[in-house]
Amino acid sequence: MELLPPLDADHPEPLYSQLYRHIRGEIEAARLAPGSRLPSVRKLAAHLGISRTPVEDAYRQLIAEGYAESRPRSGIAVLPYEPDFTSVRSVSASGGIGGGGAAARREEARPLPAIAASEASLPAESPREYGRAARERIDFSYGDVDLAHFPFPLWKKLLGGCFAPEHRDLFRYGDPLGEPGFREALSDYAYRARAVVCPPDRIVVGAGTHHTMEQICRLLQRTPYGASLTAMAVERSMSDGIAAIMRQYGYRLIPLRLESDGIDIEELYRSGAKIVYTTPSHQFPYGMVMSIGKRRRLLNWAAETGGLIVEDDYDGEFRYAGMPIPSLQGMDAAASRVAYMGTFSRALAPAFRLSYAALPPDLAAAARTALHPFDRLASPLHQKTLELFMTGGHMQRHIRKMRSVYQRKQAALLQAAKRRLEPDFRVSGGPAGLHVLLEPADGRDEAELIRLADEAGVRVYPVSVYRVEPQPDEPSAVLLGFGGLDERQIDEGIRRLADAWMRPTAESEP
Amino acid sequence: MELLPPLDADHPEPLYSQLYRHIRGEIEAARLAPGSRLPSVRKLAAHLGISRTPVEDAYRQLIAEGYAESRPRSGIAVLPYEPDFTSVRSVSASGGIGGGGAAARREEARPLPAIAASEASLPAESPREYGRAARERIDFSYGDVDLAHFPFPLWKKLLGGCFAPEHRDLFRYGDPLGEPGFREALSDYAYRARAVVCPPDRIVVGAGTHHTMEQICRLLQRTPYGASLTAMAVERSMSDGIAAIMRQYGYRLIPLRLESDGIDIEELYRSGAKIVYTTPSHQFPYGMVMSIGKRRRLLNWAAETGGLIVEDDYDGEFRYAGMPIPSLQGMDAAASRVAYMGTFSRALAPAFRLSYAALPPDLAAAARTALHPFDRLASPLHQKTLELFMTGGHMQRHIRKMRSVYQRKQAALLQAAKRRLEPDFRVSGGPAGLHVLLEPADGRDEAELIRLADEAGVRVYPVSVYRVEPQPDEPSAVLLGFGGLDERQIDEGIRRLADAWMRPTAESEP
Repeated sequence: MELLPPLDADHPEPLYSQLYRHIRGEIEAARLAPGSRLPSVRKLAAHLGISRTPVEDAYRQLIAEGYAESRPRSGIAVLPYEPDFTSVRSVSASGGIGGGGAAARREEARPLPAIAASEASLPAESPREYGRAARERIDFSYGDVDLAHFPFPLWKKLLGGCFAPEHRDLFRYGDPLGEPGFREALSDYAYRARAVVCPPDRIVVGAGTHHTMEQICRLLQRTPYGASLTAMAVERSMSDGIAAIMRQYGYRLIPLRLESDGIDIEELYRSGAKIVYTTPSHQFPYGMVMSIGKRRRLLNWAAETGGLIVEDDYDGEFRYAGMPIPSLQGMDAAASRVAYMGTFSRALAPAFRLSYAALPPDLAAAARTALHPFDRLASPLHQKTLELFMTGGHMQRHIRKMRSVYQRKQAALLQAAKRRLEPDFRVSGGPAGLHVLLEPADGRDEAELIRLADEAGVRVYPVSVYRVEPQPDEPSAVLLGFGGLDERQIDEGIRRLADAWMRPTAESEP
Repeated sequence: MELLPPLDADHPEPLYSQLYRHIRGEIEAARLAPGSRLPSVRKLAAHLGISRTPVEDAYRQLIAEGYAESRPRSGIAVLPYEPDFTSVRSVSASGGIGGGGAAARREEARPLPAIAASEASLPAESPREYGRAARERIDFSYGDVDLAHFPFPLWKKLLGGCFAPEHRDLFRYGDPLGEPGFREALSDYAYRARAVVCPPDRIVVGAGTHHTMEQICRLLQRTPYGASLTAMAVERSMSDGIAAIMRQYGYRLIPLRLESDGIDIEELYRSGAKIVYTTPSHQFPYGMVMSIGKRRRLLNWAAETGGLIVEDDYDGEFRYAGMPIPSLQGMDAAASRVAYMGTFSRALAPAFRLSYAALPPDLAAAARTALHPFDRLASPLHQKTLELFMTGGHMQRHIRKMRSVYQRKQAALLQAAKRRLEPDFRVSGGPAGLHVLLEPADGRDEAELIRLADEAGVRVYPVSVYRVEPQPDEPSAVLLGFGGLDERQIDEGIRRLADAWMRPTAESEP
């Protein structure tokens, strides 16, 4: 037995996390070679004198992060590790800007420490270069993703393969639930990446998160949950598109208070709602993570009240520090209380229009009998291409790579904000996802911040549009997406924002 | 002036139709050479001593059918004509199974005359071959299209072109209304193919007919038409998916009686509805065509009452005999009363998930300001590919080819039905589209017909599912789609149906 983790049962860090960190360190340090097998759960648990659960959780984590993979009939094998990302990963893992609700963010919002590599890569601001850069508009658009690292040639090849004569069926309408092979690949992917436990026959493919939400609304009307229910409890700030769809389907939205570790569960109990929509991995837009304790209480609520949790894991692949917390869906031992939603608009690109739901048995049964053919909006060609991308092992590598790319972009943003905007502005949003919030200490209105930014050639976005109801007590903030910008643009954008926001009369440029 | 059409103003055939037929004949007989110019509308009208309108209509028809094309700054040019389709076209043009509602179909349902070519291509039914064929299930599925004639290599090449570095924007969300270049190509295509007159900024791209219907429902809620209106007049048999969407959006459906030339306009007036949904080119499922007179009355209804017509032209490209009647949308001189819906699920293949709406100005304005990003469900990659297919001149050729392919399939079906099923079954549906109806003279229930067919290894489909309300007086019928079958399968399928339906105890197969 090679693994001798120094576990401490009295330490506040859970055993599974200590074990996970130890094994991850062994892989990163190449003491566990690619291809080598990890001991079985049973053996390692016996060897360490602990129960099997923390070992299972640690292995699941390693698999989810792409450090190891489960191979049929041969156990869990160590995967090759790219050491070029090591420095960034380990620096950031020790930092992290924390979760943080309106209150908690005051204390917890600590930017990531400066990262030497990205600092060095910033361009020298010679007057000539600066003049050129100043004319370029910088759009911190939330929906943009990084395409510089997308594997276009491979994707084109896989998509072209769909034109082989044996794939003619891909040009027809296809399965109303999604192509069977794709749903199998999704079942596997969702487990590896997000610890979602769902067989292929309970997965339904959609054409993006909003379409998946529509499908869930339609299916709810076919089950005991939904037919007679007219209210849905939601986070009091949330995606405006998702909220519009819920209202389209006749639901009254009951906004729940957000605490530093997610929704207020007491308020959920009091609301009397039987359905709750939540973004536990990375609250949208505020960025807090739902704590493990609260997840358990939320699952208890569902079990006690017969309720349903709609878990929107819109950017669950991208967590840069601390432990990626597994999906709520995977924690639901009964596997009957959570409808999980995943999308590829951020993990890959929006153009493929692909998303999926992992449904509890009753909703899945409704989908099989009642989902109308008009719900087949995802192109079978794109489904097949992503299936081949996944089964070829490319998805795991792509996510690992993009996690590192986005982490560096976020680090560049946080570093620039720390240097130029603090303490007049506070950065929040969690070490995850593709956006952060900037909150002015003086409480200035978002509209003024957006206008001043626009005059400086920078686009930033309102947060108030995400409020389900007017919330006068909510602090003012603007939203910055960073997925589509490179590190130079991010730094330049923050520099301009500092100029525009922190000097009432902007100095004229040279 | 080469054109000397023998026009007869006293003949029941309209002048434009006489003129169109004459010019078409000249092109088919190669007396008008490819590339030659037709005289200008003004000149020909003066030359013939008639008004410009019939000349314009005739030219529009020739362009819509691909006999000629309008070239910028050089007038209307004759296009190359493939003479291999001539025999089929001219035989069928003289026949035609006519329009026909429940009543009119009794008189008008005349099958196309036998076509020697397709007769000869049917396989000899040696016992050995027959035994093999008998084991194959034959599915007269409505949604299937012919893929044997789809230009896969060209499409793959055009789609692959989207991966060029200059097209990176195609991998983002894209324009909420649809890609601008694609909407330009659609504006041009809709005019050429269906006489739809609509600038690109009033076109909205969708991910199939059902999605386009959803978009129209959402936009209606934003305009004076829709916000306060809760009823929609519809054809009393119609697509069940479209009906489900209307109900989803809260509309009460008012079914209108179908006459042999379309909906009962008096009943529409009496209904008090402000919105009417109709399939004037080829009623679904019954197949009648709305007459020109009724189209004018319907447009008058809209003008008088301030109403809106939703025109679903789901298979308008495929008309095999007589005059393809231009869209209602193009006949609406005010261009403000018709929302036109077109789809490529039949004209190309369902897998691209592409459709479009040509909207009146008020709905288009609502689309520009209010269409939510969540409505962007059509993949920008497929949009671009079809744009290139259209601007490269391939679409026109493809439609011409497929019209001929489907015409031959329908002829094979009608010929087999005439030989084996008449007079016990009556065929109806019009010389258009990708489906026909079979009506038992003895009024047998559709469920029994479907069950007997299934036992013989043939799938046919119910018609009752399309009834908006139960209609005990409606004759029993089953629906047969023929798009996805070849002529041998069609003949074999009809042979088995005759065996199953017309002999109470089926003889055992050798």
